[in-house]
Amino acid sequence: MDDATVTAPAPDEDIDLAYDVFARSCPSRHTLEHVTGRWGALTLGALSENTLRFNELRRRVDGVSEKMLSQTLHALERDGLVHREDRQTNPPRVEYRLTPLGESVAERLLSLIELIEGKMPEVLAAQHRYDGRRPA
Amino acid sequence: MDDATVTAPAPDEDIDLAYDVFARSCPSRHTLEHVTGRWGALTLGALSENTLRFNELRRRVDGVSEKMLSQTLHALERDGLVHREDRQTNPPRVEYRLTPLGESVAERLLSLIELIEGKMPEVLAAQHRYDGRRPA
Repeated sequence: MDDATVTAPAPDEDIDLAYDVFARSCPSRHTLEHVTGRWGALTLGALSENTLRFNELRRRVDGVSEKMLSQTLHALERDGLVHREDRQTNPPRVEYRLTPLGESVAERLLSLIELIEGKMPEVLAAQHRYDGRRPA
Repeated sequence: MDDATVTAPAPDEDIDLAYDVFARSCPSRHTLEHVTGRWGALTLGALSENTLRFNELRRRVDGVSEKMLSQTLHALERDGLVHREDRQTNPPRVEYRLTPLGESVAERLLSLIELIEGKMPEVLAAQHRYDGRRPA
């Protein structure tokens, strides 16, 4: 961490990184945003528990609007993370579930979510300290 | 997770599952958003490589504005994920680095980022299929 020498990375280090979220024009940055955006993360998390219908998802992802959930699902479906299954019944029944790729993404996302939930006492203590030492 | 041995949590801490990102009023949802928001994720990722000064960070997080980077750093510092070190030199030299908590968060985030970068060919193929089967 205290490496004073901020040089270019060794050439062989970054060599197989064809995609790089740090580069603003890289398409991987958009996918990262779909996955980690407020509603994207919660939608993937909810679907990792169950195949769900639209309204079930809406209840689970507390606070999401119909419009935002619909946009979120389209983006995740387009990225190949969510599969939309139209059961062609009457009344129509549409279900959403994770693809295998969506499952592996959700797994890493959930590991992050669980860490954050578990560390909230530490985070809240830090917020308390921070707010206490700054003028209002 | 359903541990029955929930006896005496420390007064200021809550039991493990007291925090739930799916609940809209849970403070963990805010922290998840700071960590996974567009600039939060890239800032944590950049700092996991090195201690950096503001302008170094700005260059690494390609596309971020001064204002957004500043807001992002404040939120991450307040959550106890980033430490801001003012070296009191002339000219002033302020450095940012991850706290131990920030390091463990960044580790899980990077594992997600690496997965996404590695799976981009699959994502782009899915996007191609999706765009092809929908009317323009």
